[in-house]
Amino acid sequence: MNSKAGQKSPLYLGIDGGGSKCRVVIVDAADQLLGEGLGGPANPLRGMKIATDSILTATQQALLAAGMTFNDMSRLIAGAGLAGVNMPQYFQMFSEWQHPFAEFHLTSDLHTACVGAHRGEDGAVIIIGTGSCGLADVKGQCLDIGGHGFPYGDNGSGAWFGSQLVHHVLLHKDQIGAATRMTDLLAEALGVSATLDIVSHFMHATPTVFARFAPLVFTAAEQGDLVAAEIIQAGARHIDNIALRLFSLKPERLSLIGGLAYKVQPYLLPEVQALLTPAQAAPEFGAIWFAKAQRARRQHELLSVSN
Amino acid sequence: MNSKAGQKSPLYLGIDGGGSKCRVVIVDAADQLLGEGLGGPANPLRGMKIATDSILTATQQALLAAGMTFNDMSRLIAGAGLAGVNMPQYFQMFSEWQHPFAEFHLTSDLHTACVGAHRGEDGAVIIIGTGSCGLADVKGQCLDIGGHGFPYGDNGSGAWFGSQLVHHVLLHKDQIGAATRMTDLLAEALGVSATLDIVSHFMHATPTVFARFAPLVFTAAEQGDLVAAEIIQAGARHIDNIALRLFSLKPERLSLIGGLAYKVQPYLLPEVQALLTPAQAAPEFGAIWFAKAQRARRQHELLSVSN
Repeated sequence: MNSKAGQKSPLYLGIDGGGSKCRVVIVDAADQLLGEGLGGPANPLRGMKIATDSILTATQQALLAAGMTFNDMSRLIAGAGLAGVNMPQYFQMFSEWQHPFAEFHLTSDLHTACVGAHRGEDGAVIIIGTGSCGLADVKGQCLDIGGHGFPYGDNGSGAWFGSQLVHHVLLHKDQIGAATRMTDLLAEALGVSATLDIVSHFMHATPTVFARFAPLVFTAAEQGDLVAAEIIQAGARHIDNIALRLFSLKPERLSLIGGLAYKVQPYLLPEVQALLTPAQAAPEFGAIWFAKAQRARRQHELLSVSN
Repeated sequence: MNSKAGQKSPLYLGIDGGGSKCRVVIVDAADQLLGEGLGGPANPLRGMKIATDSILTATQQALLAAGMTFNDMSRLIAGAGLAGVNMPQYFQMFSEWQHPFAEFHLTSDLHTACVGAHRGEDGAVIIIGTGSCGLADVKGQCLDIGGHGFPYGDNGSGAWFGSQLVHHVLLHKDQIGAATRMTDLLAEALGVSATLDIVSHFMHATPTVFARFAPLVFTAAEQGDLVAAEIIQAGARHIDNIALRLFSLKPERLSLIGGLAYKVQPYLLPEVQALLTPAQAAPEFGAIWFAKAQRARRQHELLSVSN
């Protein structure tokens, strides 16, 4: 039972694969949405089998939603933005994947986020989610900054804000740091307030767990807490520095993406805020436009060779 | 084949159990060393079986060194300072251990380090190793500060210095932070210099791995690097704050313990340095004196009850 839209013209699959989930869309040549799907983590750092299973599960779901069958997988021209493939060894692993698609065009999730945010036009993005990183894509030049991982990187991210929160609450409780409203807010959120209970909760915590508590820093600052305000200033300065570095490529617009972006945005420098523009489309659409651009480039190269 | 010293008088076992290894000594009533042993991690956070196996392995080794047999284990009056037992659930687990000794007296490794450093007299200690923490034991009152774990705690520790090193090297390489000599020193140490290679090395690194690189921060500072000097100032201020808080109990001396102590010491406040005195004995001897003090206290309590 094939959909009418899928019969003649090419079909595109856009994959946004992150560390916790994988989102895919199927569209026709006119970018008309035919179906979507959701899978588990698609980051090769978690293992190739988990990553490819996540992509295939999400794709099957999208095919069913589009009124197509699993056999139609071989018709899909896939674009994928995957976390972790900025590392050459993982890019290589995924490039060698015996994928079931007609074509498979691979880049980082940060890159497809940028392509999506600016509908394939030049621009820059900064992601402020569990981690923090930025990319500018201008006149065929790409510059990516940060995103190296927590705790030695990713300042200004959810994981970093959450970890700073716990740090300053423990300083307060040990009476070697200033009193902060964050201590009460964390106790309310956890339902416990003893130092050992707090430590038990965050011992071996993943970046995702820390990131869950990041909004409390902003709540405390809004209530006039100075310790929280200082943390936010330090985090925002790091995001500013990423932005200013990306500006060396002279992008004409910058989009902030990620769960903490709207919290951090008001604290950024005026010259950074001046370039801000909302993201126009989600990364999975960026993955499709990336695939289309790659195809166009290859066809152009083939033409150049034959001429 | 029992040793002469072990025949009549009581025998004591001192256990210093940390997250990576467990060190034990056997002494006689006059604190004469009869044998020593070394085992694996004895931190109950790694699991009770691993911890108790480490203690028993090290004890058997010490018994053999003392010319005794495994059967003599039941004669030992044990004192143990173990990492992690400051958390009530782990203290409880270890208290319920069906140990093979005549007696088993339990406290934290930080406490036995303090008892060892001051030969059972009042005083304070700060440990600057992979982690950082401090304890004062004065007139029967104990105050412990820090040691909550990395990355939200343990500032000024080896793990923290190593992580700060990687952080600032990545800022330098991304051109969003000041140039630092630490970048070259880290590249020399790792044998690689590309950002992705550095990130590959420290991704999922344990505190122990970060701590291994902490000395490079001090090397850079000694070569005049300002970024490294600022990291050291921040780390030393944290250790100062621990010391000043411990001073609220008015200890008359303070010992710094741990692999990074001699590096950090010159950067501490004059009023902290003024109280510094070298540790007089190792934590495993502290564990023995702790056991002796606990016995004396109980006998005193028994006498008080019978009077």
